[in-house]
Amino acid sequence: MSSIFTKIINREIPGHIVAEDDDFIAFLDINPLVKGHCLVVPKVEVDYIYDLEDNVLADLNVFAKRVAKAIENSVPCLRIGIAVIGLEVPHVHVHLVPLNSMDDINFSRPKLNPGQEELAEVARAIAEAFK
Amino acid sequence: MSSIFTKIINREIPGHIVAEDDDFIAFLDINPLVKGHCLVVPKVEVDYIYDLEDNVLADLNVFAKRVAKAIENSVPCLRIGIAVIGLEVPHVHVHLVPLNSMDDINFSRPKLNPGQEELAEVARAIAEAFK
Repeated sequence: MSSIFTKIINREIPGHIVAEDDDFIAFLDINPLVKGHCLVVPKVEVDYIYDLEDNVLADLNVFAKRVAKAIENSVPCLRIGIAVIGLEVPHVHVHLVPLNSMDDINFSRPKLNPGQEELAEVARAIAEAFK
Repeated sequence: MSSIFTKIINREIPGHIVAEDDDFIAFLDINPLVKGHCLVVPKVEVDYIYDLEDNVLADLNVFAKRVAKAIENSVPCLRIGIAVIGLEVPHVHVHLVPLNSMDDINFSRPKLNPGQEELAEVARAIAEAFK
């Protein structure tokens, strides 16, 4: 069965997509730690980031850098933090989290629950900055 | 002034080094979240990971993958988690954290404080696996 991220890639379920190329996609986490929290995902459905081929891993990180720069230009923050955990959805996803403090990337704290309109607005701003 | 990581690279202060090449180094975090927690650092002293040139960022991640595989072979874990925060030491460092649960990569929880001998033993095992 396809992962929830493959369903977003295939437009079977909606996602607030901010960036996409032939190999990678980025969209908002719908339960963000902070506003602008994005997931960067390779289109190939691999569970574990360190099972990616070296060139895919390299390109994923360069794509993530471009997404991070777009987030920086859209959301007030000191810098973008990175986390890859991967014990839940079995499809590689890199969390990009706008940081104003260490605690902004603490996955144990309660997630936000923004409305669809707010998510759409943040996604539009990041997508515009990505171009 | 050199960062604390540059001092480790230059052997001005000791570090439990597990892997090194011309451009990157990896050593144990001396206040690890869990046993085997390593930092992967580019020798170029840049503060923010997304200020690295694309090719350096790509190579850093491929080097980190090799270190992660060595940690996996040395420390019992489900997989290696990744975090880059960077609000403290102003020199890029990728945290590689052996995960058995989500909470293993929670930076808000108390750090471990292993002795030098225990750190040396863990470092030896990872360095051996890296070869």
